[in-house]
Amino acid sequence: MNRRSRAAIVAIGSEMLGPFRRDTNSIWLTEKLEEAGIAVVRKAVVPDDPAEIARELSCASAAAGWIFTTGGLGPTADDMTVSAVADWMGVPLFRDENFVSAMRERWGVRRGIRMPAVNEKQGDVPQGARVLENPRGTAPGFWLEKDGVEIVILPGVPSEMREIFEQRVAPFLGRAGAGESVTRRRVLRIAGMGESAVEELVAPLYRKWIEDPVTILASPGEVELHLCARGDPSAAEARLAAMEQDFRAVLGSRIHGADGEAMAASVGRLLKERRRTLALAESCTGGLVSALLTDVAGSSAYFVGTVVSYSDSSKEAVLGVDPETLRRHGAVSEETAREMARGALDRFGSDLAASVTGIAGPDGGTPEKPAGTVFFAVADRAGREEARRRFFGGDREMVRRTSAMFSLEMIRRFLIGAA
Amino acid sequence: MNRRSRAAIVAIGSEMLGPFRRDTNSIWLTEKLEEAGIAVVRKAVVPDDPAEIARELSCASAAAGWIFTTGGLGPTADDMTVSAVADWMGVPLFRDENFVSAMRERWGVRRGIRMPAVNEKQGDVPQGARVLENPRGTAPGFWLEKDGVEIVILPGVPSEMREIFEQRVAPFLGRAGAGESVTRRRVLRIAGMGESAVEELVAPLYRKWIEDPVTILASPGEVELHLCARGDPSAAEARLAAMEQDFRAVLGSRIHGADGEAMAASVGRLLKERRRTLALAESCTGGLVSALLTDVAGSSAYFVGTVVSYSDSSKEAVLGVDPETLRRHGAVSEETAREMARGALDRFGSDLAASVTGIAGPDGGTPEKPAGTVFFAVADRAGREEARRRFFGGDREMVRRTSAMFSLEMIRRFLIGAA
Repeated sequence: MNRRSRAAIVAIGSEMLGPFRRDTNSIWLTEKLEEAGIAVVRKAVVPDDPAEIARELSCASAAAGWIFTTGGLGPTADDMTVSAVADWMGVPLFRDENFVSAMRERWGVRRGIRMPAVNEKQGDVPQGARVLENPRGTAPGFWLEKDGVEIVILPGVPSEMREIFEQRVAPFLGRAGAGESVTRRRVLRIAGMGESAVEELVAPLYRKWIEDPVTILASPGEVELHLCARGDPSAAEARLAAMEQDFRAVLGSRIHGADGEAMAASVGRLLKERRRTLALAESCTGGLVSALLTDVAGSSAYFVGTVVSYSDSSKEAVLGVDPETLRRHGAVSEETAREMARGALDRFGSDLAASVTGIAGPDGGTPEKPAGTVFFAVADRAGREEARRRFFGGDREMVRRTSAMFSLEMIRRFLIGAA
Repeated sequence: MNRRSRAAIVAIGSEMLGPFRRDTNSIWLTEKLEEAGIAVVRKAVVPDDPAEIARELSCASAAAGWIFTTGGLGPTADDMTVSAVADWMGVPLFRDENFVSAMRERWGVRRGIRMPAVNEKQGDVPQGARVLENPRGTAPGFWLEKDGVEIVILPGVPSEMREIFEQRVAPFLGRAGAGESVTRRRVLRIAGMGESAVEELVAPLYRKWIEDPVTILASPGEVELHLCARGDPSAAEARLAAMEQDFRAVLGSRIHGADGEAMAASVGRLLKERRRTLALAESCTGGLVSALLTDVAGSSAYFVGTVVSYSDSSKEAVLGVDPETLRRHGAVSEETAREMARGALDRFGSDLAASVTGIAGPDGGTPEKPAGTVFFAVADRAGREEARRRFFGGDREMVRRTSAMFSLEMIRRFLIGAA
């Protein structure tokens, strides 16, 4: 990768190294840089300390042709980005008296008070820097260059940083040597399969698409494949489409959605398309499947309701599970899962119902049914019925989340008629 | 500052350099390190690329006496943290065949399937590394040392990272030379009150405790006050206790819990202490209150179940809400909320029941009941009953989360007999 298409982002500010504040500017900047064909290859947070700022500038300039710093441009003593950058570059600072007078005047006009002397510091300009005017605040940004590395210094206040970037930086990124090549992404989502199982299926494609980074990300019950193509806009788009086709050929109906569509939204879309309504009976997931489904705006069009039956007596009384089934097979069993689904169908009068019953843990496991054992069922009015048993590793939260995703995937496959 | 009291955190993973994913582990780690008297002096995010990992290790080892890396320990081809660290240190990797057999066995026993060959890589150990066992997953962590810098390699999955850190790292941080001046924190949690209302009550205390940073953090439906005191352990502890007393004097029973205890756990604790059982009837929250309550291990001791009634017909059929009430007052009304709570009491035979019905939005609002209008009720067997109407701003997710927290807070206040 050309050095001109690689950027490092440096967030400067001691507060972002404590446990409460985080750098959020870099997420926005990353998106804007990608649009201009510049990939972010490292991000760092450093304190308001000239030695640490210099250390990171050295490291970043070895990794990338662009450095974007945010923060540390305020008037107070702990804001020292500008002098630290100038020191690191070995250039002097000079005070722009015109700029200082203009600031002083703005203070007088806008706030009606005299500008404090500390603020004069904001008129200090490193030699050779282009000043990036700040229409929303007093601290300007700067654009410098050292040994072929472009260094753009931006304020930390998000609105000011964005405005300066959009107005004074973005229009010149293309001309400055980047921008021939852009990044295009697509996210494919797969539920109900583990990361390594997905990996085994797609491994041959890694070799085919070795030039283009594919990232596999796992969260409880779901795997995301991030496809990414770089190049000029139309070539990148075309390669991304070809990549997607390859991955779809291997994973087929396992892919439930692309890009931002959450699992629950995919299921909702299918229910709507097929004009079917859904009810649920949840035990170990305790309402999580319902919460995911109703997170989607408009879900009342297809989702009618749930019984969360967290006790045996509520499985009998509210869902109508046969006491004999509970006695013979236990609450965590295929038989109970099936009766729960049928009970939900009956109580809510829906077209389709799904159930989950299991042991989320940490307690409640037995040798035959250790914590993490979960039974699932789906049933419809026409008498079609399916059931599954699974074991999920991890802690209580992991088991619950993985079970919820598995249940949604089972409903989805039931709807599309996949095994 | 002693080098031994300075840490660098390195998050490894190309996905965190794109615009979608961010490093969240470093926030948690920072808090834990502060407790041990170690300050975080830089944080970085680097891609799954050995050259970039090595560059950051060099930079970090010049800045700090501790390096904590997270991520890149998975079984897939793009996970390369272990080999990159070993290369940078100039030590060979060897495959721990005992570990690989143990992994293979776990796969067989727990999942009943053969471990994919790619996973064997997770048995690779850099020479001289202490292996940090992972009780929650397959990838172990490692602890190495190079030229006086301690390097701790942790997985990226938050639950695994936390468990390994707590069990295998935290107990040894003191002995390893850190810890003269420590940071002590306490988090006080308040639900059902807005950030500015809390702020107004506690503002006078900010001035009293001006030396000690108090941070106020708001999330949907909940406000956290982070109190923080630095110094030698006993002085910090004493000052923190005095601060807490001051804040409790002002906020009283509004504080539902301290430190890590989530709202649902506070409610659960109260129900258990008072030996009362709880059932729910949820409409616009769609199972979210139940999901929060059952997230707590052992919640089956006091939580019996929920009816999520997402349609009018299910409010009638499953909860027994009078059709006349729905017709006259609508599904989103105090009357319906009260009948829903009574219906849940009746159906589940619990001691206590709570209900939520409202308009989460974006659609469904009317001039008298705009989206964000929510009604709540709590009722018990003795005939005690309460109802509230609230309006919450924000998007659908915000309204749902705020409503869920408000419902829990209302149950809590009902239990403690507060108005």
